[in-house]
Amino acid sequence: MDKRIVFSGSGGQGVITAAIILAEASSLYENLNAVQTQSYGPEARGGATRADIIISKAPIRHPKVINPHILICLTQEAYNKNAGIVRPGGLMLTDKKYVRINYKVDARQVELDMYLAVMEKIGKPIVFNICMLGALTELTGLVKPDSILAVLKEKIGPDFMAMNQEALETGIQLAQAI
Amino acid sequence: MDKRIVFSGSGGQGVITAAIILAEASSLYENLNAVQTQSYGPEARGGATRADIIISKAPIRHPKVINPHILICLTQEAYNKNAGIVRPGGLMLTDKKYVRINYKVDARQVELDMYLAVMEKIGKPIVFNICMLGALTELTGLVKPDSILAVLKEKIGPDFMAMNQEALETGIQLAQAI
Repeated sequence: MDKRIVFSGSGGQGVITAAIILAEASSLYENLNAVQTQSYGPEARGGATRADIIISKAPIRHPKVINPHILICLTQEAYNKNAGIVRPGGLMLTDKKYVRINYKVDARQVELDMYLAVMEKIGKPIVFNICMLGALTELTGLVKPDSILAVLKEKIGPDFMAMNQEALETGIQLAQAI
Repeated sequence: MDKRIVFSGSGGQGVITAAIILAEASSLYENLNAVQTQSYGPEARGGATRADIIISKAPIRHPKVINPHILICLTQEAYNKNAGIVRPGGLMLTDKKYVRINYKVDARQVELDMYLAVMEKIGKPIVFNICMLGALTELTGLVKPDSILAVLKEKIGPDFMAMNQEALETGIQLAQAI
């Protein structure tokens, strides 16, 4: 069965990078197929970003995600726009600092203080997206944290690995605590 | 009318980055819509990369590219696999050092020494993808070079702008010379 995922937020939050890392982790290290899509329209000009990811054991025929099993919203604008698309019975993960939940969706709603934890523990907003990936892996088991780390090792210099690993672990711990 | 484009090559050539830059240039600076997709399957595990881009004045309903108007192949493997998909009457651009053309397709075939020119003039393989974008803009008029530069300015530090600008201009000049 495939898993359809939407990451939404604003341009500077590393949403697209996180989507590419997740797609590569699943395809390069977990023997799955993945497709990863960004759409750029009028919203992009306002700074909004959305990245779609599909992960599947079988080849993927339809790259467009209509109703994601997993929806992540990292800004209020992204939440206001996308909350309604989460699949019934799915999971919606939001960042507590950025998003105020104002209605119930027919899905598991998880609010985590990812941004605040990253700033308190690491002090670098650039790894907020990696913390989000940590929470996601813990909540869903989509891919192993080690697969994320393996992709990171190929992409970033050794000087930055410790910071990224800490961000990933921070996300895992936040999700474990709920 | 939309333009459907495929960039193909190997993992380290910056194919996905180039696709994202092109999509952002057209959507953020030229008031067009864009969708950009990567597929990761068994080929990705062998190092092959393919990025699809659709650019359109209208909203884009079908993100998958079957027969691209424009096909770019930066490795022999990418050429062998993808040459057959270029749309009749379209454009196929290949890098002369990496790809040996061994049959005629029903499209305009342009071979440029992009890699060699980048290495001779700049000496940094990392901007090979930007040189390719320069050649692409000159050959097709898809977006203005200034739109590419505007995206680059947001993405990279000022220290690297001169090198990227030179790579873009190198690609433009190579395409002008044919």
